[in-house]
Amino acid sequence: MASANSTAQRVTIRDVASVAGVSTATVSKVLNDRPDVGPEVRQRVLDTIARLGYRPNAVARGLRARHTDTIAILTDDLEGIFTNALMRGVEDAASAYDVSVLLANSYGDPDRERKHLRRLLDRQMDGLIIMSGNRVRPRSGPALPLPATPYVFLYEYAATEPVPSILPDDRGGAVLAAQHLLDIGRRRIGFINGPASWEATADRLDGLTATLAAAGAPLRPALIRHAASWSPQDGYALATELLDAPEPPDAIFGASDDLATGALAAIHERGLRIPEDVAVVGFDDRSLAVHQRPPLTTVALPLLEMGRVAGQRLLEAVNGGQQRHELIRVPCELRVRASTVGAGHTPR
Amino acid sequence: MASANSTAQRVTIRDVASVAGVSTATVSKVLNDRPDVGPEVRQRVLDTIARLGYRPNAVARGLRARHTDTIAILTDDLEGIFTNALMRGVEDAASAYDVSVLLANSYGDPDRERKHLRRLLDRQMDGLIIMSGNRVRPRSGPALPLPATPYVFLYEYAATEPVPSILPDDRGGAVLAAQHLLDIGRRRIGFINGPASWEATADRLDGLTATLAAAGAPLRPALIRHAASWSPQDGYALATELLDAPEPPDAIFGASDDLATGALAAIHERGLRIPEDVAVVGFDDRSLAVHQRPPLTTVALPLLEMGRVAGQRLLEAVNGGQQRHELIRVPCELRVRASTVGAGHTPR
Repeated sequence: MASANSTAQRVTIRDVASVAGVSTATVSKVLNDRPDVGPEVRQRVLDTIARLGYRPNAVARGLRARHTDTIAILTDDLEGIFTNALMRGVEDAASAYDVSVLLANSYGDPDRERKHLRRLLDRQMDGLIIMSGNRVRPRSGPALPLPATPYVFLYEYAATEPVPSILPDDRGGAVLAAQHLLDIGRRRIGFINGPASWEATADRLDGLTATLAAAGAPLRPALIRHAASWSPQDGYALATELLDAPEPPDAIFGASDDLATGALAAIHERGLRIPEDVAVVGFDDRSLAVHQRPPLTTVALPLLEMGRVAGQRLLEAVNGGQQRHELIRVPCELRVRASTVGAGHTPR
Repeated sequence: MASANSTAQRVTIRDVASVAGVSTATVSKVLNDRPDVGPEVRQRVLDTIARLGYRPNAVARGLRARHTDTIAILTDDLEGIFTNALMRGVEDAASAYDVSVLLANSYGDPDRERKHLRRLLDRQMDGLIIMSGNRVRPRSGPALPLPATPYVFLYEYAATEPVPSILPDDRGGAVLAAQHLLDIGRRRIGFINGPASWEATADRLDGLTATLAAAGAPLRPALIRHAASWSPQDGYALATELLDAPEPPDAIFGASDDLATGALAAIHERGLRIPEDVAVVGFDDRSLAVHQRPPLTTVALPLLEMGRVAGQRLLEAVNGGQQRHELIRVPCELRVRASTVGAGHTPR
């Protein structure tokens, strides 16, 4: 993906001052969230900064008096299944810097996001993590321009903002699952994917398809299903379809633990053995995975590590490091359990 | 419980100034978190305030320049199963005041609590909610004295702090469950309680015992079990014991949804009908309850409402309301589903 950086770096604080009709000192004050600028002038400067794509360098930001040792996460979904683990990862990284982490919830509403950002800037956060709690997807920039405050995106990304976005390597996760199923001798692999509108769905299909094709055991179109939701119910219904096919699969890969759990139920119901007749792999490694009968082999989303990377990158920027546009994909990890290798295997 | 208020209100700002050897103006500055007080003097004043139990009135607090429209929750367990719902309730209340809510996690560690509180005060929160994400229990006061900032406790309580603590009415919840089981004609009620060290355990046993005794169908000691954990596994094992008793129960009340879920499995395994042979009631109303076979009748913990009450009480204090020591117990609500009334009933 092309970086918007090359353009942005040509704009200077003088350009902003000139276009906004103020002194560079005033721009500086706005950049450093100083209170002695009227609201109208402040807004005009921020609008100009946004319009010109101006990005202050570390020196301009360094004018800020001192650090507050506090950063904030703004999530779009407090109850998203990944919010807590992501925040814990951020806290791990922040602990090393002796920095406190606060969490605010925008409910995915731009007005709430703007209001929270305004108040977080007022409270002088050293940096911000803008995060989705449930779904990787592209988004526009922060709902309020953040010229003075470093930020990163986590579990979502902006196509052109000159900051890092930390994402899971969904494609690589599917490669791990596919390679594992090949390694245990499976060749007729059924795939229950998630709803087609999710990015993870395309990425995981891509990883699976490429790996099986490279091994000379291409994914059969008849063995692919797209669930309408990520639920066990859909996993159950679609696994039943696959098991009823003329050439039923010898393995089922569910694109979420819930989908895979539904598949386990469908296989049990037919009296088939897991993994002898049909091996099953899930995706996510939510806490339920290890408690299935049999315990579910699954691709673990690297939520803690993603949070750590986001916190680390943010705090490097807080301490003067330069940011640029980049998508950082953190590798997933395969957790091998009895649903693919039988009960003799020591689960982990 | 006796209030510590009567004593605390006799101490004045002059007393604090005199004991600390500073002027009342200096005490005022400390109370309002003004920066122009040295760290040693500040600490001496805070220690004196804590030792004397001084509690400034709204006027003393009103010296603070203006509100920041930001409050914070400090939880002891980010991943506690109740943290998210409690925070959502607080946000509901805060929305009505157009106030933002931030969350920080102490991991239940006093040092972290102190550090977070210091930084939250530095960031001038209008008020603080000190919360447990998983367990009602008594605690000492805040790890850092909060003379200038209103606060409340949520899902935990301090025995003597002159502020409200918002708790669930666990006893009343058990009364609802017991009355419902009596109403559907059950008289031999088995009770699978949680670990004896939890307060909720004693409260729920008390509510159940009193209600059954009043109805002339006293709880039989032979039908009471204490689980070592709140898990489905323990619920399963103890329900099996109850079903094997000489006079097996015609209803099982599990003190958590997980315990009750284990009981459902044990009853199914014996080929008994639910609710015809054995009715089952849980406690908590976690999302899993409605998805059981059959859907589980349960006592809903009033998490959202507790959060709302905490937010409301805090913001009243932020706006000058007087606080005092009180334990506010928010009523639970019974959710009647098929595990007690059969499939003909419309679930809610």
